[in-house]
Amino acid sequence: MSNIREVAKRAGVSIATVSRAFTNPDKVSKNSLKKVMDAVDEVGYRPNMMARNFRSTKSYAVVVLVPDFANLFFTKVIRAIQETGLKHGYNILLGETRDSKEREADYLKLVETRQADGVIQLSPHIPEQELLPHPHIHAVAACGACDTPYTSVRMDHISAAKSIVNYLISMGHRKIACISGLADNPHSRDRLVGYKQALEEAGIEFNETLIFEGNFTMASGHDAGDYYAQLDEKPSAIFSMNDDMAIGAIKSFKEHGIRVPQDISITGFDDLDFATYTDPALTTIRQPAEEMGKKAMQLLLQILDGKNPAQQEFILKHEFVLRDSVLPYKG
Amino acid sequence: MSNIREVAKRAGVSIATVSRAFTNPDKVSKNSLKKVMDAVDEVGYRPNMMARNFRSTKSYAVVVLVPDFANLFFTKVIRAIQETGLKHGYNILLGETRDSKEREADYLKLVETRQADGVIQLSPHIPEQELLPHPHIHAVAACGACDTPYTSVRMDHISAAKSIVNYLISMGHRKIACISGLADNPHSRDRLVGYKQALEEAGIEFNETLIFEGNFTMASGHDAGDYYAQLDEKPSAIFSMNDDMAIGAIKSFKEHGIRVPQDISITGFDDLDFATYTDPALTTIRQPAEEMGKKAMQLLLQILDGKNPAQQEFILKHEFVLRDSVLPYKG
Repeated sequence: MSNIREVAKRAGVSIATVSRAFTNPDKVSKNSLKKVMDAVDEVGYRPNMMARNFRSTKSYAVVVLVPDFANLFFTKVIRAIQETGLKHGYNILLGETRDSKEREADYLKLVETRQADGVIQLSPHIPEQELLPHPHIHAVAACGACDTPYTSVRMDHISAAKSIVNYLISMGHRKIACISGLADNPHSRDRLVGYKQALEEAGIEFNETLIFEGNFTMASGHDAGDYYAQLDEKPSAIFSMNDDMAIGAIKSFKEHGIRVPQDISITGFDDLDFATYTDPALTTIRQPAEEMGKKAMQLLLQILDGKNPAQQEFILKHEFVLRDSVLPYKG
Repeated sequence: MSNIREVAKRAGVSIATVSRAFTNPDKVSKNSLKKVMDAVDEVGYRPNMMARNFRSTKSYAVVVLVPDFANLFFTKVIRAIQETGLKHGYNILLGETRDSKEREADYLKLVETRQADGVIQLSPHIPEQELLPHPHIHAVAACGACDTPYTSVRMDHISAAKSIVNYLISMGHRKIACISGLADNPHSRDRLVGYKQALEEAGIEFNETLIFEGNFTMASGHDAGDYYAQLDEKPSAIFSMNDDMAIGAIKSFKEHGIRVPQDISITGFDDLDFATYTDPALTTIRQPAEEMGKKAMQLLLQILDGKNPAQQEFILKHEFVLRDSVLPYKG
């Protein structure tokens, strides 16, 4: 690789001038600046960005903390973060935490030690365990639930859950089960609130035996299906807190000879690409994954630029997606 | 955040000594070193890693070039790269290229400008278009096809494709269609070679009308299903070059009233988590995604360490996964 000496020689200026052209171009005459830049092109010189970044105290990298990036919902969010970051010269450092706070702490050190400028957190905020907010770390939460105590972008999980359960009720269902994510997950908590609100407003009594606690994986949805299949009083419809668990439950029902949606209706949450290709295709809630990633990155850039966002919480709209997994209650 | 001045004061040594303790500890007395390290703990000082990295000319970051981050096969590989990197203090910079060579070039600049130490390339090598190998960029290809001209880890796509087509032949099928990925993709090329070899060895004539060129997405698999459904002479079995396209084709067949596997058998490739949850569950080839990611990162670490790997190409074993999407030919 060519070096700064060659650039100086080719441009006919001193090495100090070349250096200044990169670090402090305002202090270099227009004429010299042009000579340096031409020479840079000619010799194919690339300044040492890390050195440049050190001087500017910016690394132009952002850490994305993600609990599980084999989850297609998160990959959509991360992709949008990357697209937005690229437009502003920022790169993404991947921080898969697998829900380990120890590992999260290690990634946050990347900011403390200035290898990254800020953090986007994709896990919802759980107060008693949380490392963020942190006085020295610029952070934005994407995919938050209620009560994130720093800048966050989220959708309204309570009203989304409520709307899809209301849809099941409008189709005549009253024995509506719920496949939950882990109970201590704030998204599960918010969605359960929406589920309960919908039941209550329809005068349907909450029934604990219809709640199955999964962990957002297809395998746990399959377990849920097995659970409901052996109940004497089976639900006629199921609100699943994500698409993966709905897909798992459908698989289990087929194994038990229970037809979806003829014998039991089910809804998902997320609208993964697969939701169109399951049999039946899933009626679900589309989370605005791309918009969440984009907005979160925009907010972080604004914060890194020294400007405080106008509000702490940004709520984006979800969408109700009607497909084939629900039929009216037939009694 | 505390600074080096506070550390020096607390340790009772000069700032230069503190600095030397980080950059050149061999030049500092054991006694002073201990004082400095104790002071670092007491005041909670974190050295500027970027500055340290600059001095050591290492960034401790590796760029992963991935064509499509929302593909679950790649996320498995990336996860393994990250796990292996973390153990050696390396972080992952995400470089989603979406098959744009311009964007790939931008990511490679991160290495040229020393913001990253090396690259792991997840796209297969296409000679006439390729930016790698590059004289100044340490790189390893994971997920390669044949003919990668630098260090690569891959599975044998020819023999994997051949083995699954052989299985279809052993089940009595002779009219075996193939849903291909893009024709210029080296994985498609290798798998097509395997498909043709299996047919040839069984004395089955290659039939161009049974090949449908998709692009590895579920949507293109659905198009393939529509194509086969309208053929007068339908295939009795299909070799799909990945699971996603098989899932799309199954969806289409159901819409056309064609039963899988009773009317038509189908096989996948990759063994995504979803392959178990489709209806029917997919008989497929399991790519060793985790092993490929792990091995690629180990090789890159070795190269960054100045050691040349013993061989240029490492071929990992695939696995045949038997599920429910194939039935014997009934004539």
